[in-house]
Amino acid sequence: MEDNLFEGTESLVTPAYVRVARAARRSRTAQFRQLLTQRRLPRQGLDQHTIRLLLDELSGLDANQFLGQANVGEREGRLYSELVRVRHFGMAHGMGRAGDLAASQPKACGASLLVRLCTALLLDALHLAGFASCRHVALLPVATGMAITLCLLALRQQRPSADRVLWIRIDQKACLKCICAAGYLIEVLENKIVGDQVVTDVEALKRRLEESDPSRYAAVISTTSCFAPRAPDQVVSVAQQCQRYGVPHLVNHAYGVQSRRCNGLVCAASRLGRVDAVIFSFDKNFMVPVGGAGVAAATPILIDALQVLYPGRASVAPVVDLFITLLQLGREGFTALLNEREERFVQFKERLAPILEKHGERLLHTPENPISFAVSLRDTMVRFGVEPSAIGSMLYARRCSGPRAVLGTERRQVQGVVLAGYGAHIADYPTPYLNLAAAIGIQAHDITRFCRRLDHVLETVRRRQTSLVSAVAAHRVDPDRRSGERDQSDPEYVHQHAHPCE
Amino acid sequence: MEDNLFEGTESLVTPAYVRVARAARRSRTAQFRQLLTQRRLPRQGLDQHTIRLLLDELSGLDANQFLGQANVGEREGRLYSELVRVRHFGMAHGMGRAGDLAASQPKACGASLLVRLCTALLLDALHLAGFASCRHVALLPVATGMAITLCLLALRQQRPSADRVLWIRIDQKACLKCICAAGYLIEVLENKIVGDQVVTDVEALKRRLEESDPSRYAAVISTTSCFAPRAPDQVVSVAQQCQRYGVPHLVNHAYGVQSRRCNGLVCAASRLGRVDAVIFSFDKNFMVPVGGAGVAAATPILIDALQVLYPGRASVAPVVDLFITLLQLGREGFTALLNEREERFVQFKERLAPILEKHGERLLHTPENPISFAVSLRDTMVRFGVEPSAIGSMLYARRCSGPRAVLGTERRQVQGVVLAGYGAHIADYPTPYLNLAAAIGIQAHDITRFCRRLDHVLETVRRRQTSLVSAVAAHRVDPDRRSGERDQSDPEYVHQHAHPCE
Amino acid sequence: MEDNLFEGTESLVTPAYVRVARAARRSRTAQFRQLLTQRRLPRQGLDQHTIRLLLDELSGLDANQFLGQANVGEREGRLYSELVRVRHFGMAHGMGRAGDLAASQPKACGASLLVRLCTALLLDALHLAGFASCRHVALLPVATGMAITLCLLALRQQRPSADRVLWIRIDQKACLKCICAAGYLIEVLENKIVGDQVVTDVEALKRRLEESDPSRYAAVISTTSCFAPRAPDQVVSVAQQCQRYGVPHLVNHAYGVQSRRCNGLVCAASRLGRVDAVIFSFDKNFMVPVGGAGVAAATPILIDALQVLYPGRASVAPVVDLFITLLQLGREGFTALLNEREERFVQFKERLAPILEKHGERLLHTPENPISFAVSLRDTMVRFGVEPSAIGSMLYARRCSGPRAVLGTERRQVQGVVLAGYGAHIADYPTPYLNLAAAIGIQAHDITRFCRRLDHVLETVRRRQTSLVSAVAAHRVDPDRRSGERDQSDPEYVHQHAHPCE
Amino acid sequence: MEDNLFEGTESLVTPAYVRVARAARRSRTAQFRQLLTQRRLPRQGLDQHTIRLLLDELSGLDANQFLGQANVGEREGRLYSELVRVRHFGMAHGMGRAGDLAASQPKACGASLLVRLCTALLLDALHLAGFASCRHVALLPVATGMAITLCLLALRQQRPSADRVLWIRIDQKACLKCICAAGYLIEVLENKIVGDQVVTDVEALKRRLEESDPSRYAAVISTTSCFAPRAPDQVVSVAQQCQRYGVPHLVNHAYGVQSRRCNGLVCAASRLGRVDAVIFSFDKNFMVPVGGAGVAAATPILIDALQVLYPGRASVAPVVDLFITLLQLGREGFTALLNEREERFVQFKERLAPILEKHGERLLHTPENPISFAVSLRDTMVRFGVEPSAIGSMLYARRCSGPRAVLGTERRQVQGVVLAGYGAHIADYPTPYLNLAAAIGIQAHDITRFCRRLDHVLETVRRRQTSLVSAVAAHRVDPDRRSGERDQSDPEYVHQHAHPCE
Repeated sequence: MEDNLFEGTESLVTPAYVRVARAARRSRTAQFRQLLTQRRLPRQGLDQHTIRLLLDELSGLDANQFLGQANVGEREGRLYSELVRVRHFGMAHGMGRAGDLAASQPKACGASLLVRLCTALLLDALHLAGFASCRHVALLPVATGMAITLCLLALRQQRPSADRVLWIRIDQKACLKCICAAGYLIEVLENKIVGDQVVTDVEALKRRLEESDPSRYAAVISTTSCFAPRAPDQVVSVAQQCQRYGVPHLVNHAYGVQSRRCNGLVCAASRLGRVDAVIFSFDKNFMVPVGGAGVAAATPILIDALQVLYPGRASVAPVVDLFITLLQLGREGFTALLNEREERFVQFKERLAPILEKHGERLLHTPENPISFAVSLRDTMVRFGVEPSAIGSMLYARRCSGPRAVLGTERRQVQGVVLAGYGAHIADYPTPYLNLAAAIGIQAHDITRFCRRLDHVLETVRRRQTSLVSAVAAHRVDPDRRSGERDQSDPEYVHQHAHPCE
Repeated sequence: MEDNLFEGTESLVTPAYVRVARAARRSRTAQFRQLLTQRRLPRQGLDQHTIRLLLDELSGLDANQFLGQANVGEREGRLYSELVRVRHFGMAHGMGRAGDLAASQPKACGASLLVRLCTALLLDALHLAGFASCRHVALLPVATGMAITLCLLALRQQRPSADRVLWIRIDQKACLKCICAAGYLIEVLENKIVGDQVVTDVEALKRRLEESDPSRYAAVISTTSCFAPRAPDQVVSVAQQCQRYGVPHLVNHAYGVQSRRCNGLVCAASRLGRVDAVIFSFDKNFMVPVGGAGVAAATPILIDALQVLYPGRASVAPVVDLFITLLQLGREGFTALLNEREERFVQFKERLAPILEKHGERLLHTPENPISFAVSLRDTMVRFGVEPSAIGSMLYARRCSGPRAVLGTERRQVQGVVLAGYGAHIADYPTPYLNLAAAIGIQAHDITRFCRRLDHVLETVRRRQTSLVSAVAAHRVDPDRRSGERDQSDPEYVHQHAHPCE
Repeated sequence: MEDNLFEGTESLVTPAYVRVARAARRSRTAQFRQLLTQRRLPRQGLDQHTIRLLLDELSGLDANQFLGQANVGEREGRLYSELVRVRHFGMAHGMGRAGDLAASQPKACGASLLVRLCTALLLDALHLAGFASCRHVALLPVATGMAITLCLLALRQQRPSADRVLWIRIDQKACLKCICAAGYLIEVLENKIVGDQVVTDVEALKRRLEESDPSRYAAVISTTSCFAPRAPDQVVSVAQQCQRYGVPHLVNHAYGVQSRRCNGLVCAASRLGRVDAVIFSFDKNFMVPVGGAGVAAATPILIDALQVLYPGRASVAPVVDLFITLLQLGREGFTALLNEREERFVQFKERLAPILEKHGERLLHTPENPISFAVSLRDTMVRFGVEPSAIGSMLYARRCSGPRAVLGTERRQVQGVVLAGYGAHIADYPTPYLNLAAAIGIQAHDITRFCRRLDHVLETVRRRQTSLVSAVAAHRVDPDRRSGERDQSDPEYVHQHAHPCE
Repeated sequence: MEDNLFEGTESLVTPAYVRVARAARRSRTAQFRQLLTQRRLPRQGLDQHTIRLLLDELSGLDANQFLGQANVGEREGRLYSELVRVRHFGMAHGMGRAGDLAASQPKACGASLLVRLCTALLLDALHLAGFASCRHVALLPVATGMAITLCLLALRQQRPSADRVLWIRIDQKACLKCICAAGYLIEVLENKIVGDQVVTDVEALKRRLEESDPSRYAAVISTTSCFAPRAPDQVVSVAQQCQRYGVPHLVNHAYGVQSRRCNGLVCAASRLGRVDAVIFSFDKNFMVPVGGAGVAAATPILIDALQVLYPGRASVAPVVDLFITLLQLGREGFTALLNEREERFVQFKERLAPILEKHGERLLHTPENPISFAVSLRDTMVRFGVEPSAIGSMLYARRCSGPRAVLGTERRQVQGVVLAGYGAHIADYPTPYLNLAAAIGIQAHDITRFCRRLDHVLETVRRRQTSLVSAVAAHRVDPDRRSGERDQSDPEYVHQHAHPCE
C-alpha cells in the first residue's frame, strides 16, 4: 500500500496519531528499501509481521494473484485449496523456467524477485560464516545428494570422455548414490588413520592422479562435514592436486556452513586450488525443513551450467523457507547461532567426559572435526559383549535421535562398491564407537537429556550382564528418578514418569 | 487426543452436551479410520478443520515434534522460524532416506505415513480419472522435466549401451533439456500434418526402429498433453512399436491427468503395448503449487528403480500440498473439476468462434486435442502485417496469461538440435496462430475476460493499420466501455477504469 | 510498501514482467484507495490475500508493532504468545478509550482506522439490506442482550425518574435479563392471537401509555426478529405511540438485519415514529462469531450517549471479524446471501409440508414472520402422548441444532416476572409446536438432513407407541437406509452408517 | 484421533518407528490428561503445536464443526469467512447462555470446556502470583472498567437503597465512568500526601463511614495498581472498615496481578476484612489483547451474581487468548515473567537516576508503588518554562509510549465531579512530574531507548531556552549519534537515521 493513501485517513483518526504511525510505517519501508537495494542480511532480524508483509507484497506480484487476470494457459498457478494457498502465501509458480532455474518467470515476478533476493542474502550469510571467497551461489530445490548428482550431470557436458568419479571415501550411502545416479563409476580413494582420526591420504591421491589419465575423472569429490572420527578432508591439498591435474573438484560441504572452520577450509581451497562447486544443505545449516541445497563457488562456470541444465521449474518452497529464516535471523542472529553451536560443542564433550570415564569409555581424540565427535564403546563390547548397535537402539527407544553406532568390522557392497569396515570410513578401525554431533540449533536440554540417558543405558547394559536377575529390575527403573542431581526443569519428567519409554 | 480423555469433562460441562459432542467426534474419527485403513479418496472432500487436525496429528509423530526428545545428530529437523514451522505443520524431515525416496524415515514417522497415504490417494485419483491400468506411482518432489530426467537416469543402468533417446517432436524446451540433462543424445522423430492437426508419424517411427539398432535407444518419449494444433501422440501405436522392438517407452503426460481422454490413451497403451512410465505434473493436474510430479505405471520396474536411484531426501512440501488437495477434493470434488473443465473447454471455443469470424480468423480444427486449441492469426498477419508475437505481448500486457503466439517459420537450435518451424512442432505449418487452453480450474471469468480482450486487441491492431491517426485514439479506449454487452459483474471494471492496462 | 520501491527490482527481474506486475499492484492499491476514500462496501468482495494485506498494513500502524518503540506504560499491547499475535494480526489495543468507545487511540492508529472503516461499511450494508433511514451506528463488542442493557443505562441519564421498561412480551430469557441488569422493573405488555399468529396488541399498548405516567418508562422495547408463531411487532404503530407519549423506543432487531422485510419495518418506524435505537447482532446477521452487536438509528442522540457511556476499552475482535466478512462479501455477496436465505425459507417450508401431512401435522400459518416458522406437534402429543420436548431431544441427539419445542402450558417466573404459557409468547397458545428458522447462511443440506431426520423421529415415536416390541427394532434402523430417495451426496452417510447417532 | 488408529499404519511405515512415535504421542496425551484432570498450569509451558492441537480438538466439539449437522435455528455459528474461521479455530458460539455467562452451551461443548479450563488455570495463576485466598473467579469478555460497572449492577439487586459509590480518588477517567455507567452517584474520598507519596486517608474513610448511612453506599472502590506518586490503597484497612460497616468493597486491581506485592495486599484484605470482588485486566497482566477482565474473590456471592446478571452470550476470544497464553507460559514461564518485571523495575530506576541528576531532576520517592514510579519535571518547568505536557508530546513523537505528564494544577470536572489537581490524584501536589511504569513484559530495549530519548528531550528543551539560535541546530542532531556510548545493537538506528522522528 502506498503511504499517501493514509492522507485521507486523517479525517477518520486524530491526525497526530496518524502522523506518528506514518513515521513508524516509513521506518518499515526503510527496512524494505534497504533490503531491495543493498540485498544483504539486515543487521538485526526482521520481526514476523514485517516478513509476512514482505511475502504478501511479493506474492501479490505473481500473476495468479492479480485482480482481473484472465488465465487461458495450461499452467496458471491455480490453487484449489485455501489451506495450501495460505501456507505458500499464494505463490504457486515455483521457481525457474524451462530455460534456466535462475531465470525470471513472466507469471511470477514476485517469486522471481524473492529467489534473487534470497540468493543475495545467502551469499552474504556465506561470507559472514567465513566463506569469503564465494562469489556465486545457486539455490537448488533438491537435497544435497541430488545437488551433487546435478553438478556431475552438468560436468558431463564439459568432460565427455570421463566415466568415473574419484571419491575420497566417506561412508554415507547418499554420497555413493549421487555418483551412480549421474551414471558414473565410483573409484574409491581410501583414507588413513592418524591417532584416533581418519584423515585424507593426500599422498595416495597424488599418486592416483599421476598414474591415471585425469580426463577419465569427471570430478574428485571431497568432504568437509563428516562424522568423527573421520576428519574433514584436506580440501586445500585436494584442490591443489585437482588444479595441477585439471580435474574438477566438488566439495561435499553438506552441513559445513554452520562451522566457520569448515568454511575456512573451502575458502582457502577456492583461493589456493581448484574448487568447482561447494555443495551444502539448507536444512542442516539454516534450520529449515529438508528440501533445498546451495551450490557455491568463487567462479560462475559450474554454477551457471547447473542452472541452465535443470529441466523445468521447481518448488520454490525451500527457498521461501530459507528467505524467511535468513530475514528473521539477520547478521546478529546468524552469528549468535554460530557462536552458540561452538560453545555447545565444547560443553557437550565436557559433560560427557566424566560419564564415559565412569563406564570405562572415552572421547576419541578428533581435534580437526569441529561439529562431530565420537565416544568409544570398546569396554562395553569387549567386557560386556554389547554391540554398538544395541546401544543405538536403546537410545532411539529413549528418544535420542542422531547417535550413530559403528562397529567398524562390517564389509558391505554399496552401489557396486565393496567397502571394508563400512561405517567407519576405513577398514579396520580399532575401536567400536558412537558418533555424536553438536549441530546448529542444539539446545542445552538436548545435551542434558542425552548425557543422562546414555549414562543410564550404559549402566543398564553393564548391570544386565553382571546379573541377569538384577537386569530385569534395572530395566524398569526410571533414570531420572535414581539420579540425585536430576534436572527438575526437564519437561520430559511428567510423561516419562507416566510412560517410561523403554 | 483419545476419546476417553473427555470422560472427565462431564464434570465441567453438561453431560448431555458432552455425549452429543463425543458422538460427533467419533464421526470424525471414523473418517480418519476409513482413510487410514481403506486409503482411498473420501467420497466427499474433508473440511479444512479435519484436514488440519490430521496434519497436526501426523506431524506430531515426527521426532522433531516429540516432547522430551534429545537431538544429537547433524540433521534433526530443527526449525528456527516459527513462521516456517507453522506453514509446514512442523514437518521438517522431508521425505525419503538415502536408500530410497519411498522409504520410511526413523525420525519422521508422520511424514512417512503421509507420503504413503498420499501415494494411495493419488493412485485412486488416477483410477477415477480413467487411468485404470495404473498400479504403481512414485511421488517425486521435482517438476515434470526433471522427473523425466530421473526416469532416464534410472533407465541408464538397465541399458548400458544406449546413448540416445528417440523423441517424438514436441516443441517445448524442457522436453529437450530433460534428455540432455540425463546425458543422452536427442534423435528427433518429426510429426506430420493431417488437416489442421499435427500428428504422430507412426510409419516413420516404425521405419526408424526397424532400421536402427533398438539397443541404442534409452527410450522413446511420447506426449499426450500438448499445445494444439499438435494432437496427443498415438501412444497406443507407439507403445506397440516399443514393445515389438524392446525399447522403453516414457509418456510425457504432463497435464494429461486432467483429461479423461488423455488418461484413456495411456491406459490403453499400458494394456496393449509397452509403457515404462507415465510422467505427470502435480501442479498442472491437481491445482497445487509447482514442485511435484508423479511417475505412474502398470508395472513396478521403473518406478522402483526411480525411487532407489534418488540420492538423499527431498522436500515433502509438494506431497503435503497434494495430500491436502486430494483430501479436500474427495471423489466428488475431483470428478466435478474434471466435468467442469470439459464443459468450459466447449464453452470457450463457442464463445470465441463469433469473435474470430468477425475478425476474419477461425478456430483450427483439432478434434483430438481435448485441452488445448488454437485460433488462426493469418488474416491479422497477412492483411495487417501484425505478427502473432505482437498479439501475444498485447494480451500479456492486458493480464491475459497463457496464450502462446506461434509464427511457425522460426528455425531454432535447442540443446544442439536444429528444429525448423520451432514452436509449431513441425516445419512449415501453414498458419500463424495463437494457442489457448481450457485447463483444470479454468473459471467462467477467465473465458469472458479473455474473449473481450482478444476482441479488443484484434480490433485495435486492425484499426491501427487502417489509419495511424485513428489508432492513437483507439489505443485509449477501454474495451469494456465500448461494448454494449459488458459484463457488469467483472471486478476488473473498477481498476481497469482507474488504470487502463494498455 | 511503496510502489517506487520496486523500481530498483528491474535490475533483478526482467523489466517487462515487473511492469505488468506493478500495474496489477496498482489495481490492488486502487481497491484500497476506493475503500479508504469512499468507505463503502466494494461491489465484489475482496479476496483473502487483499484483506490480509490490508489488515497487516493497518496493524502496522499500531504502536505495539512499531520498530524502535520504547514502551514504558502499564498498557502497551505486549503479546506473549505468537499464536495469539497471529490470530489478531498483531492488534492488541482493542478499541475505544476511557472517554469514548468510538474515539481514536493514540497507541492504536490502525485499529482506530479499522473501527471507523467498519462502521462505514456496516452502515452501507444496512442501507443495502433495506434500513435506508439509518444514519448512525455504534459497534459494540458485546452481544445483543448486553447492548440493550447499555442502551438502557444510557437512557437512565436522560430519564432520571423512570424506573421501568414496557416490554412487549417475547419469551426469550435474555430479553428479560437485559432489562433487570440495567436495574429496571419489567412491565409486561401481553400479545394477542390472530389466526395461528401471536401479534402485538397495539390497542393494549395505547391504553397502557395513556393510563400510566409515560415518564415512568425508560423505554418501550419491541422486537422484529422472533420465533414463529409470534410475528414481528408492529413497530411502526409502536413507534408512533412512543412518539406521541414521548417514550424512548428500543427495537430488538437481533437477527432482523438478514431480512429485508424486517429492515423495512424498522426503516418505516424510524421515519414515521420514534425509534431511539435498533439493536442487532453481528453473529446472527453477518455470519461471524458471537461477540458483537450494532446499535443503529436515524438520529445520533442515543448512539453517541452509548459510546460515551462505555467505561474503558473493549475487544476489537468482533469488529475485525465483521470487517473481514463485509470486505469478503462485498455488495454482491451480501445481496446474494439475502436472496438465498429468502429462497431457502420457501424451500424449507415446501419440503416439510408433505412430511408433516404424512404424520398428521401441519405448518402453522405465520405469514408475517419472514425468518422463522413453526410446525404443529398436536397429533404427536394428543394421539401418541409424546411431548414436544421429547421430539426436541431426539432431534438434538441426531445433530439437529436449532429447533425449539414449545408446549405452551408452562408457567414460569423469569427475573421476577410470572409468564403463563412461557415459550409461546402468550398464555394458552392452542397448539404444541416445533419452531424452526431459515436463517442467513442456511444450506440446502441443512434442510435435506433436517427433513429426513424429523420424518424419522416422528415415525419412530409413532411406531414406538403402536407397538413397544416393534419400537425396539425401529430404533435401530438407520433412517437413511430405508428411504428409497436417499440423498447419496450426503456426507453423513459414511459416519452415520458407522455410528448411528441415536 | 485415537491412538489405536495408528495400529494399522504399521503396514505402511516401519513398525519400530511407529512404536517410538506412538510412545511420544502418548506423552502428549499425558499432557492433555493432566490438564483435563488436574486443571492446573502445566509446570513448563506447552509448545504451540500442542496448544493448536488442543484448540482444534476442543473446537471440534462445537456443533458448528460437526460432520452431518443440520442447522435450523437462528444462531448456528455459521461463519462466512474462512479467514475468520481460522483465527477463531472454528469456535463461533462465544461463551455463556442467556441464563449464565458461565453456563455450558448446548451448541458449544468445546468452547464451554475451554472456558471452564481457563477459569481453573487463571485461578492457579492467581495463587501462584500471591493471591492465595482467591477461590472464585469470573472471566468477563469486557475490559476492567466495564467489569466494575457489571459488579455495581450486580450489587444493585442486593442493596436496593444504595444510590452512590464511595470512591477513593484515583484520577483515571474510566474509574469515574464505570460508576456513572452503572447509574450511581460518585462520592469522592480525597487522598493525603506523605513525603512524595499520595496515600489513602484511612482516617477520613472511617469518619465518612461513621458519619453517613452505610446503606446509601453500593460499594467502596479502592485501587491497588495506580500511577506513582499515588501509592496503592491501604486495602487491608479499607476492607476492615467495609466489614465493620457492612459496605461492599470492590478492589480495582487493574494491572495489579503482575505484582506479587499488590496481590499480597488483596490477599490479606480478603482474609482480614471485606472484599467482595477484585477486578483485574487480562491484557495488562497476561500480555493478551485488550478485551477481557477477571473478577476474583474468596467468596462466590458477587461472582455468581455477576455471571447470572450478564444478559446473553459474549465473545470468547479474550478467554481463548488467555487460555493460549497461560498454557504457553506454564508455571515456570509465568514466574519468570513476574521475576523479570521486578528486576527491570529496579534497573529502570537505576538507569534513569544519573540522567535525571544531570538535568536537575530526580526520582520521586514512592517506595510503596511496585510497578509505577515518577520523575520530577520541576526544574524543567521552573527554570526553562517547559510544561510536562510538552515533554510528553516530544516523547510521543519519538515513539515513547506510556509516559504520563502531570502538572498537578488542573481543575477538571469529570462525570459531574470536580477534581482539583486532576491527574495527580490530589489537589496541590507540589511537583510537576512524568509518570512511568515497568509493567510485565517490559524489555531491556524499552528502558535503554527511553532513557536515551528522555535524556535527549531534556537536553533539547534546555538548550532551546538557553539560546534560540543553537536550539534550531540541536533539533537536527540525532541523539543516538552524539552519544559516545550509543548502543550499536539498537535496530532503530537504521530508520531513525533515515527518518529522524522529531
